[in-house]
Amino acid sequence: MSVEALASYLRAQATEFLRALRLHRESGAGAGPNGGPPGQGTGDDGPVDPARALRRAARRLSGTLHTYQPLLDADWAEGMRPELAWLSGTLAQEHAYAARLERLLQALHRLSGSSAVPARRQPAAVSAGPSALSAPASSSGLPDRANLTVGAAKAGALLDRRLTLARTRAHSAALQALGSSRFHAVADKVALLASEVPLRRPEGTAADLRPLARAAEGRLRDAVAALPLVTAGHPYNAEALIHGLSPEPAPHPQDAPWHQVRLLLRLHRYAREVLAGEDGPDGEDTHLLTAGEALDRHRDASEAAAAAAQAARTPRIAPATAYALGVLHADQRHEVEAARYAFRHDWRRGSVREGTANPA
Amino acid sequence: MSVEALASYLRAQATEFLRALRLHRESGAGAGPNGGPPGQGTGDDGPVDPARALRRAARRLSGTLHTYQPLLDADWAEGMRPELAWLSGTLAQEHAYAARLERLLQALHRLSGSSAVPARRQPAAVSAGPSALSAPASSSGLPDRANLTVGAAKAGALLDRRLTLARTRAHSAALQALGSSRFHAVADKVALLASEVPLRRPEGTAADLRPLARAAEGRLRDAVAALPLVTAGHPYNAEALIHGLSPEPAPHPQDAPWHQVRLLLRLHRYAREVLAGEDGPDGEDTHLLTAGEALDRHRDASEAAAAAAQAARTPRIAPATAYALGVLHADQRHEVEAARYAFRHDWRRGSVREGTANPA
Repeated sequence: MSVEALASYLRAQATEFLRALRLHRESGAGAGPNGGPPGQGTGDDGPVDPARALRRAARRLSGTLHTYQPLLDADWAEGMRPELAWLSGTLAQEHAYAARLERLLQALHRLSGSSAVPARRQPAAVSAGPSALSAPASSSGLPDRANLTVGAAKAGALLDRRLTLARTRAHSAALQALGSSRFHAVADKVALLASEVPLRRPEGTAADLRPLARAAEGRLRDAVAALPLVTAGHPYNAEALIHGLSPEPAPHPQDAPWHQVRLLLRLHRYAREVLAGEDGPDGEDTHLLTAGEALDRHRDASEAAAAAAQAARTPRIAPATAYALGVLHADQRHEVEAARYAFRHDWRRGSVREGTANPA
Repeated sequence: MSVEALASYLRAQATEFLRALRLHRESGAGAGPNGGPPGQGTGDDGPVDPARALRRAARRLSGTLHTYQPLLDADWAEGMRPELAWLSGTLAQEHAYAARLERLLQALHRLSGSSAVPARRQPAAVSAGPSALSAPASSSGLPDRANLTVGAAKAGALLDRRLTLARTRAHSAALQALGSSRFHAVADKVALLASEVPLRRPEGTAADLRPLARAAEGRLRDAVAALPLVTAGHPYNAEALIHGLSPEPAPHPQDAPWHQVRLLLRLHRYAREVLAGEDGPDGEDTHLLTAGEALDRHRDASEAAAAAAQAARTPRIAPATAYALGVLHADQRHEVEAARYAFRHDWRRGSVREGTANPA
């Protein structure tokens, strides 16, 4: 596998990045936080949300620069990577707050025994939901609170206020980032990349991508091997909530190795995309995708649990509100535990199917 | 299997009842709520707690009268059963409150990431713990609260106050019951039973116990078949917490069929004890015991979750206290879900091993 495949992948992602940026500018949503058309996500059938496509390409460029850096111009790659990471991180915030609120409000409804969650609050709508390119949705779209207890309704309203505020700030930050000279410098570099990839050796030479891809896979496997997968494989091990009432205000330190595996799994997946080239994804990619989705749920539930705990520290809230937030926190920590169980299942199934010697 | 086995079992349980009663009187603990010696549980090695032995015999007598009633004098059995149920119910309350407090305080420590739960708060000590025959332990034996957050410590203190009060009342009620003429009438009847069992047909005749034992097993199997075991077999199904924030203040109605199965399983187990006679328990009895223990945990966690929810309705508690109680409630509801998963596993394993056609 020559560096030609690497150059081709980078050019394709750069082109994708520029296409998403053009779509964003044409939509006019970048005019200001409240200036654009609604631009709501249209589900899986409609066109891809431009901000999402931008994040997607930025993540792939950044990950590929990381894994295959020895084959690329060192100064260029080292200068480019943090800028792409900054961009995808900044663009991801608004969506993350929206999805977190969504998840918490849905959980409050589930915990209230209410199945009447409006359609636009379904996860599918969230994943393609409002983004940095559209104005934040107003609270008027909140689910009906008729079936909630006073505590659950107040907890929902408190979370809505807090996360909508955070989302609005993230929206402004994203718009500011997209208008900054820092962003224009990144965009210029990506435009150059779309036509010419600064390789360390000329295209067509014998340098092999596979050892670097294998190194990325090795980093993933090492990190997975260090996870407490035996515990995670026992249902109801009650591990995720162990520090649920700990005096430690920081996010659960036990989550960090899982978050790290999530990032390494993504890098491994992107590394494989480069190798696959025009062959497209195979069975293992499907398994990696499923395992990665479990780790996404792990991250989302972990952050939602933290958001509930933080909201409970709001001064002068009613005891009923605090109680509902406590139930919600514990519920999300159990989702964390469930995601670990699911990851262990997916990972093991993938390993067994491949016949590798790592049935962790 | 003739009625002789039934008569022999009833005489043995009646004798056990009288022995436990004599031990209780000799211990002098019946003098008053605070008059007796500590009489703390001594674990599995020491002598059996007399109140526990009394409850145990009363439950077996009551259950056997129920299952094998057609073979017994109808008027006598119908008059005796509710009195035995009253007695075992009254005697069980104090222990139940003590065990519930124990469970909740241990959970608070676990949720605070503290492993330093004092030895006398271990489950083994609870099961043979203070009973109606001893004065309630004072709060001085509570685990160290140094590792708890303010909320967890306050929640623990609130639960301690509430459940210790309930336990003290149950203690008084049990002592009052043991001194009542109603109790003396039951004890007199049991004394008669120890020498002569009022059978409908004379001992040694051909009446068979097996159809009645099979009927008890059939009632159990029907009730188990009606349980949502498919859902319970999926780990992290999030079913038990579905009404965790429901406006409905009553205990979770979804728990009732499981509680019913717990009682039917106990009746089935006692019915088998009568048949086993001197053969003693076999492999299936072990399986029934394990499955029954899962249902005991289900009941205990269900009631502990309700106690946390009720405590959270105390007026003027701090938000941090309410938050900790919310986390605790959700934690215990997940224990409910875990117990269902364990029961389904134990039950299925037992069914498969026996080769019966009920792999529910």
